Amino acid sequence: MLESRVIMTRTLIVDTISKVGDKVILKGWVNTRRDHGQIVFIDLRDRTGLIQVVAKPELVEDLHSEDVIYVTGTVAKRPEKLINPKLPTGTVEVQAEKVELISKSAELPFDMGSPTLNLELPTLLDHRSLTLRHPTVQTIFQVQAQLVENFRQAARAIGCLEIFPPTISASATEGGADVLPVDYFGHSAFLIQSPQLYKQMLVGVFERVFIITHVYRAEPSVTTRHLVESIQMDCEIGFVDSFSDLLDAMETVFSRTIENTQNQFDVQRSLVTNKVPRLTMREAQKIILDRTGIDHTSEPDLMPEDEREICAWARETHKSDLVTITHFPTSKRAFYSLPDPRNTEYCLSYDLLYKGLEISSGAQRIHDPDQLKRTIIDRGLDPANFAMYLQAFEYGMPPHGGFSFGLERTTMKLLDLANIREASLFPRDMERVDFRFSSHEPPQ
Amino acid sequence: MLESRVIMTRTLIVDTISKVGDKVILKGWVNTRRDHGQIVFIDLRDRTGLIQVVAKPELVEDLHSEDVIYVTGTVAKRPEKLINPKLPTGTVEVQAEKVELISKSAELPFDMGSPTLNLELPTLLDHRSLTLRHPTVQTIFQVQAQLVENFRQAARAIGCLEIFPPTISASATEGGADVLPVDYFGHSAFLIQSPQLYKQMLVGVFERVFIITHVYRAEPSVTTRHLVESIQMDCEIGFVDSFSDLLDAMETVFSRTIENTQNQFDVQRSLVTNKVPRLTMREAQKIILDRTGIDHTSEPDLMPEDEREICAWARETHKSDLVTITHFPTSKRAFYSLPDPRNTEYCLSYDLLYKGLEISSGAQRIHDPDQLKRTIIDRGLDPANFAMYLQAFEYGMPPHGGFSFGLERTTMKLLDLANIREASLFPRDMERVDFRFSSHEPPQ
Repeated sequence: MLESRVIMTRTLIVDTISKVGDKVILKGWVNTRRDHGQIVFIDLRDRTGLIQVVAKPELVEDLHSEDVIYVTGTVAKRPEKLINPKLPTGTVEVQAEKVELISKSAELPFDMGSPTLNLELPTLLDHRSLTLRHPTVQTIFQVQAQLVENFRQAARAIGCLEIFPPTISASATEGGADVLPVDYFGHSAFLIQSPQLYKQMLVGVFERVFIITHVYRAEPSVTTRHLVESIQMDCEIGFVDSFSDLLDAMETVFSRTIENTQNQFDVQRSLVTNKVPRLTMREAQKIILDRTGIDHTSEPDLMPEDEREICAWARETHKSDLVTITHFPTSKRAFYSLPDPRNTEYCLSYDLLYKGLEISSGAQRIHDPDQLKRTIIDRGLDPANFAMYLQAFEYGMPPHGGFSFGLERTTMKLLDLANIREASLFPRDMERVDFRFSSHEPPQ
Repeated sequence: MLESRVIMTRTLIVDTISKVGDKVILKGWVNTRRDHGQIVFIDLRDRTGLIQVVAKPELVEDLHSEDVIYVTGTVAKRPEKLINPKLPTGTVEVQAEKVELISKSAELPFDMGSPTLNLELPTLLDHRSLTLRHPTVQTIFQVQAQLVENFRQAARAIGCLEIFPPTISASATEGGADVLPVDYFGHSAFLIQSPQLYKQMLVGVFERVFIITHVYRAEPSVTTRHLVESIQMDCEIGFVDSFSDLLDAMETVFSRTIENTQNQFDVQRSLVTNKVPRLTMREAQKIILDRTGIDHTSEPDLMPEDEREICAWARETHKSDLVTITHFPTSKRAFYSLPDPRNTEYCLSYDLLYKGLEISSGAQRIHDPDQLKRTIIDRGLDPANFAMYLQAFEYGMPPHGGFSFGLERTTMKLLDLANIREASLFPRDMERVDFRFSSHEPPQ
């Protein structure tokens, strides 16, 4: 049945421009249909774009949006006055000779043919396999794929090897809060909140590593910037000479990732400078007090509104959409963060803020096994839970540190999306796995 | 404290060859130590290799294997007769002037300085962060990183976009056997056994996609070729013209991945031909009967010994380490496999065997929503469990198919490892998550 079509090879829509006068077979979806009496215009969509197909009504009788069709026809130049400058294929059209219906679409629950898709978030997600088809939504994930690829290249450029550590662990990275439990053959296990412990262990092997991995956090709240399952892009770097080397590495990897992606897509350009402004958390709080009169100088962390305010400051005073905040209180960061030897109340930690949001976090790590074990005990954690991790430090661990980027957060901020769920193909939060639990509890 | 070392930049060991006469600072691990009276030879290891360091005894007094040290010294040509042809840096050595101990290693539980690491598997895994450091073990994961990268390039070359679907799902891919359950805020969810359902849904969006993802299968048995958590490399391709196009795509992606990796590493070369032999399952069983007298011609699948035998046949008769087996019984494959229209008892499915082991599996898929729903019901599954998946087929799904490779299996076979656990950084099976449950149940 399918074999008969092999004779003629499919032409991708983007390639029609160079095939004026040629007979082609196009394959794709009916994007829109416009009836003009004795002639019907179909905008056909494939993964490379849109093209106008001109057909006699009898050829396309029952066709409507999202039907999958194969169109045999001839590529023709459009008359000058009918050129569509908004479409890359706007100088040509295909005059249909034969149209085969391959898969009939059900009637659409909403209009998919407009330049933008104005749907409420629950509707967008309840019909995800349909709404993802809209060109503006597709673009989000094409950009995302490129962000990941550019991150990989930037991580390799600083000497990191890609590794694939597990996502099921016996020890909770940060001590057990907000973890998702897995029933592992009757044993207790968790989904990782980050690949932190494994990437540090592997610095002892490969010196410099990077990871693209799923991470899981049972956030018991629903916000515009948290997901239960998300993608994290991590680097961990051994033989670090100084704290500022780590900041350089984080800023360089992120700036390159963003800039290369901006060069590949027509997106609003972020302000990326070679010199990302750096402030300690206390310095940032002081600037915020001076600018706004709001006194958060005794707070142990930056609040979301502080992140927005200090980013506004960085944009105004340094023409930068990025700002690095360092020296968070030791007690507020994970146990493996190295306290600053000059003042152990603060640790050699850092966040990278981008357009008002923390998109990266990291620290220089404790690499002395005795100090690490003491810290675990001081935090009220049980060293036995970290036996495999601690083992790695027994056999000569170099000074090291690292950082991790949230892929969905980066995508969201780069593209100025309102909600992180728009940057996830099938977002998971406490109310939804594919469908909202409230509306559609999956049967057991 | 660390800042003082910034003055001189670290030289990587591989770069010493071009720095004869220069003063350098090297950073790494003591690989081995040999005392010769008034002189001590240290083989220093970093991520780029090994180099001989020559030092006076008083400089390296208490140093032993796996200590992390910084060595300041001068690169010197070795006398002709002391050149080590086995070492890339064998023409030079570093005469140490200063040696700093950065991290002291505990005494090693076994010898790490021999060219091969002859340990029983449990020992290898119980000391994983140490055994991974051995050059022969490190290489496995350097090859693995390159296998993944070469797969990505091969997948992109056939038009696939990289996507990041979730690993937590509300519907079990293949109906519920051997899944790992997740407690999801009190709701029932699973870890995916494959990204199958999501990649098919996304063919309706992007036409062609690829995925590198963790997959999970609660294998209730311990074998040399199964892991509970493993890495899968998937492609799914829309607008397929014929079954043989899918076989071409699978064989091309795999052959390119293997061949490019072989070109990058000094590994035993596999026999890869442009024309991978193809047999139906029944043809393969007939050949096995003819060759061995063992009659499996009524079996519904190939047994592990059949896979080995038909690979021996392919190697002998076609000089190929690859062989493709098609047309498995419809009842033995997942519900989404398309039955062969010419004989629906068999489906348009395929496995790729490599050196005696199935390393890829796939099929042309059912793309008609009514047929798909009927099949789900006929299999005794509940369509409500597949609501999100079925929705994607309602809105025009092109003919499509795909395949997936197991990364650890591919690594294992490419490098002729005896056990799949050797190809996983931290392998998970029913007896082990980091530590064996029997020996080291993590405290709750």
